[in-house]
Amino acid sequence: MREAARRLIARHGFAAVSMRKIAAEVGVQAGALYNYIPDKQTLLFEIMQAHMEELLTARAELDAPADPVQALEQFTRFHIRFHSNRPDEVFIAYMELRNLTPENFAAIEAMRRTYEDQLTEILVAGVAAGHFRLAEPRVTTMALIAMLTGVNTWFREEGRLSLDEVEGIYLDMVRRTVAA
Amino acid sequence: MREAARRLIARHGFAAVSMRKIAAEVGVQAGALYNYIPDKQTLLFEIMQAHMEELLTARAELDAPADPVQALEQFTRFHIRFHSNRPDEVFIAYMELRNLTPENFAAIEAMRRTYEDQLTEILVAGVAAGHFRLAEPRVTTMALIAMLTGVNTWFREEGRLSLDEVEGIYLDMVRRTVAA
Repeated sequence: MREAARRLIARHGFAAVSMRKIAAEVGVQAGALYNYIPDKQTLLFEIMQAHMEELLTARAELDAPADPVQALEQFTRFHIRFHSNRPDEVFIAYMELRNLTPENFAAIEAMRRTYEDQLTEILVAGVAAGHFRLAEPRVTTMALIAMLTGVNTWFREEGRLSLDEVEGIYLDMVRRTVAA
Repeated sequence: MREAARRLIARHGFAAVSMRKIAAEVGVQAGALYNYIPDKQTLLFEIMQAHMEELLTARAELDAPADPVQALEQFTRFHIRFHSNRPDEVFIAYMELRNLTPENFAAIEAMRRTYEDQLTEILVAGVAAGHFRLAEPRVTTMALIAMLTGVNTWFREEGRLSLDEVEGIYLDMVRRTVAA
């Protein structure tokens, strides 16, 4: 049911999708839907929360290399893989933030910040070890994440480059952006 | 009127904004609105087209430096300035592409491609002149544009860094990404 809702919201936008439409997509009565989800706001929050939890869990399952250079490579490859597999979730995560209540927004932002902080820590460790050179770790974090998530806007499976090749090209750009 | 529509669409999403709501925001009867705009699709297209035309015109008004290194600096500073001044238009330009008819989508995509091609040409010229090193000019173009547009997601006027400082930091990252 959450999957049907996610599909509809990614296609039409949160404001245009009613509980009635979601019920129709799932194939149940609108009344039945309210047994699972109290309201649309909760539904949107749960979709975004599930996405962020999946992201943080997938990261936590990796063995983080102690070496910042290797950790940066792992982060870069992970970010591209994870997000290119989930275009609807990424789209909703960016687009529908404006439709969250302040409390729900704060909760999603905190999870996103936890993820971003992992990259910032890698950058700071790399600077300390003399591998990286950058003035503003937080700005570089936001710049690299925007660059990497941008793969979703143009990459197509059927295109000339494989995702593996794209990963390699982006990894090279990321390394050069922060190189000492 | 287009400004009121743009504000509403950026806040609520295209699908959730009716001609009636736009008329109410402008302070006219819904019927009067149809004298200016035949339908919502035309309105959305005109908002996105006006944004892209403004972008291409503003670029065309600049004297393009022959030197690729200087041209890259000009493009970088221009892109950040232009887009950070227009958060609503940028948001709509990315988010509401899915709501355009195929013909309107193709027209907007062609204009966007014209803009992207300007950066690709700078990169290719820089490689030819031995200033830049990169494997895939088109991929680097998409990566740099995503990175630069990303300023909009985090930059706040009232923050610690001025837009001038942010421009300088991004310019440094852009240069290093493509450095020979």
